[in-house]
Amino acid sequence: MTNIAIHGAAGYTGQELLRILAGHPEVEVAQVTSGSFEGRAVGGVFPGLAPFYDLRFAGRDAVPPAEVEVVFLALPHGEAMGAVPPLLAAGKRIIDLSADFRLQDPTAYPAWYQRAHTAPEFLPTFAYGLTEWCMEEVREARAVANPGCYPTGALLAILPALAAGLIDPTTLIVDAKSGVSGAGVKASETTHFVHANESLKAYRVAHHQHTPEIEQMATKVAGQTMTLSFTPHLVPMNRGIATTAYAALHPGVTEETVRNAYAARYAQAPFVRLLPPGRFPDTAQVRGSNQCHLQVVVDERTRRLIMLSAIDNLVKGASGQAVHNLNVMLGWPETTGLGAPPVVP
Amino acid sequence: MTNIAIHGAAGYTGQELLRILAGHPEVEVAQVTSGSFEGRAVGGVFPGLAPFYDLRFAGRDAVPPAEVEVVFLALPHGEAMGAVPPLLAAGKRIIDLSADFRLQDPTAYPAWYQRAHTAPEFLPTFAYGLTEWCMEEVREARAVANPGCYPTGALLAILPALAAGLIDPTTLIVDAKSGVSGAGVKASETTHFVHANESLKAYRVAHHQHTPEIEQMATKVAGQTMTLSFTPHLVPMNRGIATTAYAALHPGVTEETVRNAYAARYAQAPFVRLLPPGRFPDTAQVRGSNQCHLQVVVDERTRRLIMLSAIDNLVKGASGQAVHNLNVMLGWPETTGLGAPPVVP
Amino acid sequence: MTNIAIHGAAGYTGQELLRILAGHPEVEVAQVTSGSFEGRAVGGVFPGLAPFYDLRFAGRDAVPPAEVEVVFLALPHGEAMGAVPPLLAAGKRIIDLSADFRLQDPTAYPAWYQRAHTAPEFLPTFAYGLTEWCMEEVREARAVANPGCYPTGALLAILPALAAGLIDPTTLIVDAKSGVSGAGVKASETTHFVHANESLKAYRVAHHQHTPEIEQMATKVAGQTMTLSFTPHLVPMNRGIATTAYAALHPGVTEETVRNAYAARYAQAPFVRLLPPGRFPDTAQVRGSNQCHLQVVVDERTRRLIMLSAIDNLVKGASGQAVHNLNVMLGWPETTGLGAPPVVP
Amino acid sequence: MTNIAIHGAAGYTGQELLRILAGHPEVEVAQVTSGSFEGRAVGGVFPGLAPFYDLRFAGRDAVPPAEVEVVFLALPHGEAMGAVPPLLAAGKRIIDLSADFRLQDPTAYPAWYQRAHTAPEFLPTFAYGLTEWCMEEVREARAVANPGCYPTGALLAILPALAAGLIDPTTLIVDAKSGVSGAGVKASETTHFVHANESLKAYRVAHHQHTPEIEQMATKVAGQTMTLSFTPHLVPMNRGIATTAYAALHPGVTEETVRNAYAARYAQAPFVRLLPPGRFPDTAQVRGSNQCHLQVVVDERTRRLIMLSAIDNLVKGASGQAVHNLNVMLGWPETTGLGAPPVVP
Repeated sequence: MTNIAIHGAAGYTGQELLRILAGHPEVEVAQVTSGSFEGRAVGGVFPGLAPFYDLRFAGRDAVPPAEVEVVFLALPHGEAMGAVPPLLAAGKRIIDLSADFRLQDPTAYPAWYQRAHTAPEFLPTFAYGLTEWCMEEVREARAVANPGCYPTGALLAILPALAAGLIDPTTLIVDAKSGVSGAGVKASETTHFVHANESLKAYRVAHHQHTPEIEQMATKVAGQTMTLSFTPHLVPMNRGIATTAYAALHPGVTEETVRNAYAARYAQAPFVRLLPPGRFPDTAQVRGSNQCHLQVVVDERTRRLIMLSAIDNLVKGASGQAVHNLNVMLGWPETTGLGAPPVVP
Repeated sequence: MTNIAIHGAAGYTGQELLRILAGHPEVEVAQVTSGSFEGRAVGGVFPGLAPFYDLRFAGRDAVPPAEVEVVFLALPHGEAMGAVPPLLAAGKRIIDLSADFRLQDPTAYPAWYQRAHTAPEFLPTFAYGLTEWCMEEVREARAVANPGCYPTGALLAILPALAAGLIDPTTLIVDAKSGVSGAGVKASETTHFVHANESLKAYRVAHHQHTPEIEQMATKVAGQTMTLSFTPHLVPMNRGIATTAYAALHPGVTEETVRNAYAARYAQAPFVRLLPPGRFPDTAQVRGSNQCHLQVVVDERTRRLIMLSAIDNLVKGASGQAVHNLNVMLGWPETTGLGAPPVVP
Repeated sequence: MTNIAIHGAAGYTGQELLRILAGHPEVEVAQVTSGSFEGRAVGGVFPGLAPFYDLRFAGRDAVPPAEVEVVFLALPHGEAMGAVPPLLAAGKRIIDLSADFRLQDPTAYPAWYQRAHTAPEFLPTFAYGLTEWCMEEVREARAVANPGCYPTGALLAILPALAAGLIDPTTLIVDAKSGVSGAGVKASETTHFVHANESLKAYRVAHHQHTPEIEQMATKVAGQTMTLSFTPHLVPMNRGIATTAYAALHPGVTEETVRNAYAARYAQAPFVRLLPPGRFPDTAQVRGSNQCHLQVVVDERTRRLIMLSAIDNLVKGASGQAVHNLNVMLGWPETTGLGAPPVVP
Repeated sequence: MTNIAIHGAAGYTGQELLRILAGHPEVEVAQVTSGSFEGRAVGGVFPGLAPFYDLRFAGRDAVPPAEVEVVFLALPHGEAMGAVPPLLAAGKRIIDLSADFRLQDPTAYPAWYQRAHTAPEFLPTFAYGLTEWCMEEVREARAVANPGCYPTGALLAILPALAAGLIDPTTLIVDAKSGVSGAGVKASETTHFVHANESLKAYRVAHHQHTPEIEQMATKVAGQTMTLSFTPHLVPMNRGIATTAYAALHPGVTEETVRNAYAARYAQAPFVRLLPPGRFPDTAQVRGSNQCHLQVVVDERTRRLIMLSAIDNLVKGASGQAVHNLNVMLGWPETTGLGAPPVVP
């Protein structure tokens, strides 16, 4: 068994790591930390986890015990920057679910996250953890920057078209819709039930901090600098992100070309599935699982390619992908601990 | 008092007409028809309407009594075609909430609605009822084709930019999200609670029948043939459509130019409101009302204009707009019977 | 026009008063106060109300201007105690939507609300405002204690049976289910969308502060001291309370006796309606309206009476009832400003 | 591996069996049948199950192959009656998720299900499968009648109090609230999203068919004939049943006595958990799992015991309990294949 720690285990992604790792045959959760729940039993805070963990939350500044090999950081954005240097110095492997080490350009942090990076010298240490596209980097990495939820849904949908040179990269528009768990566990007007229910709205239009993350990876795959439109929307549901992306097709590209490119790219990916023609990705069909459903439509009237995906933002968009990265780092089969079907309905 | 009839009053738009007209000071509902509820009292079928109507449903083929001046057709798509000719012959005015007389080109019906038009000679009789943009035509009309819900939300958002020549019409993309009442009252797998709840998905991608309706009106306003992308999505809420539209800005156009164009265009429109900068249209804020909230964002990084709107699909997107058209046709103040604030939360 | 003020207008009940009073022909809202929104325009805070109010929030300690005759107190529980004495001294009439003057026994406040009453000498000044049952008291009152949402739903359902002596008062059990707006506008773990959605749970079992309020009025009508069970539940919806109450029938009482008693008691009540046999009250059918739907079922197997009601907690359970009380106090027709049908669906 | 078949695998309980059994290490699903999906691949109908099953639906009348040892019947109520005799004759074991063999008294079927029983001679063959209370019978049984969802939630909450003689059985009232999946996969007005959303209502008051099932088991445990009130309510959520039950406490019974009785009764039950004082069962905390959360409250004011439970109606209330029964029948550890934590949030 490999001992792991989860720092910041009381938020949604930490809680979801606990749920997933309860069924992981190679992993023992040796430490969980929380600023809010220090000293309380995991099963007291999360009654559904009571049968699975006999563990109490350590405080936010607790140091992982010696036997811990891997630390998952599920801290708020901005806090992982400080946590990483001592953990690396202590020889721990890290999977960071925050945004703090996703962008390789340190100047992007003040621009998009309103804070300077305090540990820019460690940015090159981190592999970007979009597992299906960064498998080799993750396998070799001591530290992984786990992708954002929106970037995961967007990139899995658009990268095959960019990689195969099927679309004009300058025309790319990503319109995404997320369940409310994406807004985090903190209570606010935005996350108030009565405010979010029966409501559909865009937010941070043209300024969402996931934009440069999508652009960074798209740039790498497209081989040219990408600047794209990304608009997030808040949807009255707990989990799920549905992404609809649009781009102009290059002349001569047919639906068959596109489908073949997507099918080939993900032929070995156990969690990504191109749906049969005529079916569209639905967040309800992937709920609770690490699956990503895709569809591509060639619109001959406009000569645009429409790329659609659905993921569970807390699993494939966060904690499930983090465990997938753990499996790759430690050389275990990709689906270890991630084999549960979605909870439908 | 003006006597009106509602044919097909048991669907959502018919029911919503009954709700709105209960408070309309100039109108008496003299007849309601329904294939399903013939002979039953309105208040027996819809308990909340019991205090307001002492009326029974006539059968689906009932002829409006002589005193009826205006007939609202809230029939399923395809049935209004047959109902219109005798009503016009009897001298009735018509406000048709179906799609049957919205498209002026008869060949569009088989292409997008999978049925030939059976009364194409009456297409020119109908004014398109996007009230804020077709005020003069509606005022003069004997018959109005009330716009679709998606076209209403899309057109109110994009037309000012097209009219003012601010954007490149060939780049227009409309991504829309609708509550489930847009799918109609008929029970089906799609509208099953357990299927729609906690679900977000696109449908009829690149093939939705509201596409040519948006294009027809956009073409008229832009002064050039428009072909655009339109993608509808189903959202787990009862009412509301949020629309996010994207287009390339012409060089030199600034946010100030855009805001001024929108503010000016709707300065006299009692139901359309450009929100202050930084606030985004939210379906929850217009629920139950005829209001349309708008926002426009200039994204300097991509030089795109992002146009957003929120409406209640059953009010501004259907029955409220129909009553607005009635008011215009009959020379009453625009807001007559439509003055109720939204029901928030 | 009668000038009124709303103190604490930024919570759900204050906001709902603004919505309702926008359509009230006898009332002018002359002042609104808020601790959070001082200085901001009503339409800036609540975009849907922008067309209806040209008014800014005064601060929480603002004194009503001289022309104001009636003050609605929509303050948090505990704050109305302090606000009432100076308002009464200034000659204002008061309709208090908080719990501060509902219980006539001052010792009940520390027991159920964990705070001593600071103005017990004014308790007798207040009429309890369950309009259908306290019409005369309200008509004569300078101050009205507007009932709680749960007590309104419960009492309208059970009082006719108690008044007519049909049931054994010692056996009464009230099981109630409320939408989340009943928990108030304050963001908390309880009201977080992700926490409340897909969740059904009881809370404050055997200890909810609305229990003595139900008992006080039931005692008065039954003519004997009542001690009953009341259990509230939180339901993932915005508005609505459904109440199911159970009691042992006295021997010989038949369904016909019961139905006649209920029908007779509410024959003149414009907002209360006993549904036809076989239909059950549904919160969805009263949403946004001041209506209360009732049903009664005699279960011969158990010889129990089951009494059911549905109301909109923000309208009939709060602000609509407050306006109803205003109408009664000022001698206007009961339905003035309250005539809008429910917003269904 | 033990081969099993699922007859009627396209409804919610069949689909849920497929989800659970995908992770069951001792079971191979050898046959699934469906009237609607004959010939289609499981993964084509349920995209989330595609990675787990390489199987096509057989037709509704398909006979299980010889290697199948156990047949799960997830057929509509009324159809299992006909299916059972030939399966028993063929030597199969049966776990029937319908109501057809739950009531031992054949005359109860016409009274509560509006149909005569066509195979009453097989009623004694079936053990009632409330696993925690019928362990021995299930272990010995060839056929199990899997309990209804409401009876499971109600009985787990009330039986310890009845068994220990803590309450007056004649005063028992069960008020239950269910998510919409309890209404089944068939599309209808009741299950229409727009109808069920933002709605809370009781249904079949005093006449629900689960009443005699609760009474039958309660009678057995209480040792006296029970007649109780049971009221079901429909809640706008997919999964979950919350039950609140009320009964008069016998004199002298304390909260400590009650808590000890419940804790002792379920000390060895891996799926049932009495929550700490002050926490109430919440359907959200058991979603997707076979867990049942309980709470008991002694109300000294009324001297009533309030018993509360929460289950996932499709798991503990149906398919999870069916797999639990399978495990017991076949002598495997109780939690085999049922060890996944709830999906929270």
